[in-house]
Amino acid sequence: MAELTELGKNACAAKYILQKLTTEEKNKALDTAANYLCDRQAEILAANESDLENGRRNGMNPGLLDRLKLTSDRIAQIAEGLHQISELPDCIGEVMEHFERPNGLKIDKVRVPLGVIGIIYEARPNVTADAFGLCFKTGNAVILKGGSDAIHSNIAIVRVLQDALDVCKMPRTAVQLIEDTDRAVTAQFMKMKEYVDVLIPRGGAGLIRSVVENSTIPVIETGTGNCHVYVDRDADVDMAVKILMNAKTQRIGVCNACESLVVHRAIRDRFLPKMAETLKTKNVELRGDESTREILLDCIPATEEDYGTEYLDYILSIKTVDSVDEAIAHINRYNTKHSECIVTENVQTAEKFLNEVDAACVYVNASTRFTDGFEFGFGAEIGISTQKLHARGPMGLKELTSYKYKIHGNGQIRG
Amino acid sequence: MAELTELGKNACAAKYILQKLTTEEKNKALDTAANYLCDRQAEILAANESDLENGRRNGMNPGLLDRLKLTSDRIAQIAEGLHQISELPDCIGEVMEHFERPNGLKIDKVRVPLGVIGIIYEARPNVTADAFGLCFKTGNAVILKGGSDAIHSNIAIVRVLQDALDVCKMPRTAVQLIEDTDRAVTAQFMKMKEYVDVLIPRGGAGLIRSVVENSTIPVIETGTGNCHVYVDRDADVDMAVKILMNAKTQRIGVCNACESLVVHRAIRDRFLPKMAETLKTKNVELRGDESTREILLDCIPATEEDYGTEYLDYILSIKTVDSVDEAIAHINRYNTKHSECIVTENVQTAEKFLNEVDAACVYVNASTRFTDGFEFGFGAEIGISTQKLHARGPMGLKELTSYKYKIHGNGQIRG
Repeated sequence: MAELTELGKNACAAKYILQKLTTEEKNKALDTAANYLCDRQAEILAANESDLENGRRNGMNPGLLDRLKLTSDRIAQIAEGLHQISELPDCIGEVMEHFERPNGLKIDKVRVPLGVIGIIYEARPNVTADAFGLCFKTGNAVILKGGSDAIHSNIAIVRVLQDALDVCKMPRTAVQLIEDTDRAVTAQFMKMKEYVDVLIPRGGAGLIRSVVENSTIPVIETGTGNCHVYVDRDADVDMAVKILMNAKTQRIGVCNACESLVVHRAIRDRFLPKMAETLKTKNVELRGDESTREILLDCIPATEEDYGTEYLDYILSIKTVDSVDEAIAHINRYNTKHSECIVTENVQTAEKFLNEVDAACVYVNASTRFTDGFEFGFGAEIGISTQKLHARGPMGLKELTSYKYKIHGNGQIRG
Repeated sequence: MAELTELGKNACAAKYILQKLTTEEKNKALDTAANYLCDRQAEILAANESDLENGRRNGMNPGLLDRLKLTSDRIAQIAEGLHQISELPDCIGEVMEHFERPNGLKIDKVRVPLGVIGIIYEARPNVTADAFGLCFKTGNAVILKGGSDAIHSNIAIVRVLQDALDVCKMPRTAVQLIEDTDRAVTAQFMKMKEYVDVLIPRGGAGLIRSVVENSTIPVIETGTGNCHVYVDRDADVDMAVKILMNAKTQRIGVCNACESLVVHRAIRDRFLPKMAETLKTKNVELRGDESTREILLDCIPATEEDYGTEYLDYILSIKTVDSVDEAIAHINRYNTKHSECIVTENVQTAEKFLNEVDAACVYVNASTRFTDGFEFGFGAEIGISTQKLHARGPMGLKELTSYKYKIHGNGQIRG
């Protein structure tokens, strides 16, 4: 644990240097790091091969192995990500508000880094460089705890990033990796409130729950998405089929994919058969309530558990409702406050849905798949926040900042 | 615990009603609640007398008894506070940002309530009405857990508030009190993540630490302030004495009071004697380092512990430094990120201090005592945040809100 405290102290020392860097200095380091990743891909790929070998030996499933695997192309993509972050505007130092008080005090609300950010994630080595890039651009030091299955890849990537920082005369400790893969170390990390300002878990529901339950550091919850498409009585049926198909199947394992369909009974007979026919082309399994099964005779019955499940798979639960109010109540009961969609041509119904559904992103007549930093125009993102504190929805650079009040006086005292 | 779950469910049901209220409806309920508090002060004062009797019987100290005590005047002040909240602008529904994407998606970032707020506080019955007022104006349901020493007062106040809501045809459950004073119930409350969006502890360091360590609900840390005044080599000595005197003694038990003085050695000989003479008029005990004691011969030696202590008393620790860098390092080491002040006529030194000191509010030539919602022009406040996530410094109405993205499309799907 002594080593962990050391990492914390290093990060705190680094943050005071990072917060003073100019935009040019930060961009130069990001571009250098990107180039280093490409130039030194041989050592990264060799390390990655060790992780892959261990994974295969331990019977890791093909999906996870694929997420773990790096290639020359994938490293080039990671490097391109860092170049893109370098090109994004720098929001640090921005005067967000300025006001003067009757007593003459001049108050500036100024954007500043959070300080030290901790990221806990699973075996996806691309996150290592992404997280560094976003944190570094916003003047934050970062301590990374990656999945143990990717430990060799992460060590190699972090070493390359640190060497790039070195050559730019920046503190290597702007990015640090917890190399000890013991679970007790992770548990200890989550209690390092003295050194770490914010903890962001990236991964599945289990990882996130564990961080929320154990951390004393403020956490930003990201990730899980039990997202719905509601097809209203006034929907354009063809548009509804197209949006549902996209939201459900365009990419299956992501948090903004649709998991559940809610259909107004008045449009059920026209919509469900077309929908089923289209989703059949992707072999999506349908699980519906009684009313759905009156129309789709071979539909599997949906259980209570289905409505609460983020499948991340070719499965869709279906619920029939008699009103938009019932749709909203159903969604607010089962959703994870991520992304929700209504398909309707009725403006009043759309506004009601936008106002009353409790989620980070609520769509009218568009796929839930747009909840994404790039799609929103924020550039790279650190994740999708599903909590209401600090940041909600796609978290880009601004969401990795805080603010401070700078107050200029000329001798004011309080009466 | 069943009762607690009931409160959580009630609050969640109420939040959907509250988020739809118009400004007029909310203001009317706040004004009615204020009038009810005055009209029904007899029953509140009687309940308060029970608490005071218990307090005296249990040997509660005079300071705490005073904070617990209500009078006709104090109830009038509490009511006036609610009227003031009614007069503040309503920020819910504000479009914070609007942007359009190349694919035609129109995205509005809209201010919304947090949902359900939990407040855990000590035996100050005025917080009961304040917290209700701020949460209600921002469309949030609130669950209160007040100190057990004020339980009768809180029950009486909440009953009056609920009756006022009733007559305005609002849900009584917009404000609920946890009446069970068992500690196990408080522990359970802090885990009610399913129902409560944010938990705000208001009180001393012990209470706040306990909430941070035990809550699974996102917490906004408030409160403790180990605040410094740094008197630079280029300070106006008279201004420095005046600001320090105000920051230290204008009100002694508050979080934005000064606890520690940092002095540049070059101004030490001119500043310290004047400072000591002035603070002596309020009997402030001085605890200084070696260098301080060369000038102030009767000054008590300061220990390491002194520099880390929020006295909330007529005591001041003193540290001498050789540079503004040393001053900044000392402050960043010992402060609680609340409010810090530099007194200097040197613009460069001031900017350096403003940029490099890590605190919610950093002052040049003004007393730390201005860190306060009213002094900032925000109106009433729920507390002073000392964390960097979500809100920093004085937390008024806007800091009790979140946002959601409302996205209008016309059939967009992701490619």
